[in-house]
Amino acid sequence: MELSAEQLKAFDDKGYVFLPNCFSEEEIALLRIEGEQILKADRKEVWREKTGAPRTAFAAHTFNEVFRLLVSHPRLVGPLKQYFGEDVYVHQFKLNAKAAFEGDVWQWHQDYGTWARDDGMPEPRAMNIAIFLDDVLPINGALMIIPKSHKQGVLAAGHDKTTTSYPLWTLDKDTVTRLANEAAGPDGVGIVAPTGKAGSVLMFHGNLVHASPPNITPYPRKIVYLTLCAVSNHITKFTREEWIAHRDFTPIEMVDDDALVEYARAHKSAAE
Amino acid sequence: MELSAEQLKAFDDKGYVFLPNCFSEEEIALLRIEGEQILKADRKEVWREKTGAPRTAFAAHTFNEVFRLLVSHPRLVGPLKQYFGEDVYVHQFKLNAKAAFEGDVWQWHQDYGTWARDDGMPEPRAMNIAIFLDDVLPINGALMIIPKSHKQGVLAAGHDKTTTSYPLWTLDKDTVTRLANEAAGPDGVGIVAPTGKAGSVLMFHGNLVHASPPNITPYPRKIVYLTLCAVSNHITKFTREEWIAHRDFTPIEMVDDDALVEYARAHKSAAE
Repeated sequence: MELSAEQLKAFDDKGYVFLPNCFSEEEIALLRIEGEQILKADRKEVWREKTGAPRTAFAAHTFNEVFRLLVSHPRLVGPLKQYFGEDVYVHQFKLNAKAAFEGDVWQWHQDYGTWARDDGMPEPRAMNIAIFLDDVLPINGALMIIPKSHKQGVLAAGHDKTTTSYPLWTLDKDTVTRLANEAAGPDGVGIVAPTGKAGSVLMFHGNLVHASPPNITPYPRKIVYLTLCAVSNHITKFTREEWIAHRDFTPIEMVDDDALVEYARAHKSAAE
Repeated sequence: MELSAEQLKAFDDKGYVFLPNCFSEEEIALLRIEGEQILKADRKEVWREKTGAPRTAFAAHTFNEVFRLLVSHPRLVGPLKQYFGEDVYVHQFKLNAKAAFEGDVWQWHQDYGTWARDDGMPEPRAMNIAIFLDDVLPINGALMIIPKSHKQGVLAAGHDKTTTSYPLWTLDKDTVTRLANEAAGPDGVGIVAPTGKAGSVLMFHGNLVHASPPNITPYPRKIVYLTLCAVSNHITKFTREEWIAHRDFTPIEMVDDDALVEYARAHKSAAE
């Protein structure tokens, strides 16, 4: 799959492109079931909220076949190879649970700030791909983004080690307010929260400022955040665990477009 | 003002009625300016979040002329006198700030549970009126309600004195999940978050289950929650401060419909 000229322009202008229903219900059902199993597991890659609810599962593509197929999927890898004009590798894989009632806040931040400071990534030639495993509603902790904020470069940030269980370089209130004012449309609002059915995909720039509020509803909001980096732009500092910031820069070999469907059907017949 | 037969039926079926743009921009600008002044004040009626940001200002109608006009306004008092078939008095007045970046969660609860347990209010013959002083957006901590939950009577609740600075009788996750399932529409979602411009009004039943998430945006979300009670149903236990649960059961005398506009214009000319 490739992005259209219009989608590429929107990405450069706004810092993101939203692809509703990129994966089918059959594909997403498979990912959701596997994801729920992983979030229950007691292993080092699964981090928990202060309440004990799952927060993030790292690196699931390294130990789960279904997520290996996902990170190698042509609907995700194709557009990024097109955009960067070269091969890409997996820099980071997170399955963020945003569990019903217990999913906690992710404060305002840029991801490339962390990749540069902690991982020594030379340029923001890596992109985030958010794959919705549940319906993302306005009420269940939707991801919020500030359009155009990717044009600001790396903004000054403080290292927040206390608010949640996950340390993060976060932006201050004045910066977020300024960026939201600069992005404001006629309604005065400069923050967008893309919502949609499970299977929708949001691709966004590594410098796009984003956050998400706690989830106080009974509706979980699982999103896979996959970061693919241009191979020539691989990281140079190994300060984080290798299952958080990967050190295997092998180019992704794409699987067939129907790989997830084939797996789901084979798996289903095997179970019958 | 009176509610239509259709609005009264919707209220009985769903437990709420939403009135977009009930107050004009001129009226709301006056309320917003006065409200912001009150939230800055260092007085016992103004409660703060753990961060120090304002959370709630009680009883502003007892010390501020503009809010005295609001609680006596025919667009609010008229429908309630109509619904209860008798005079009403002010049981409680809260200006909830839900401040930009700092407004904290209100957990799932019913208000009448508190009025019954703490204040000895005989029946749920009191109604909440939410008056939006800012635009309520999906992203800035919108009030969430569970339609039809007002038909459940008073549900079992636990007294939460730790989560936020305001003690509250809150419902457990299983109860909220069950109620949301019972209210679910074809999309499977049983929670509604009415959003709209400043000046919009939401009237909701004292037993309607509601909550609101933290506000992590730069957009404040001030709402006045006015509780008007049928005079014959006045409270019988005085366990809370009189400026939290009022003990003056005098029937409200309505002001003229243009009272706020008249005040705004008089005030403006005086300032010139």
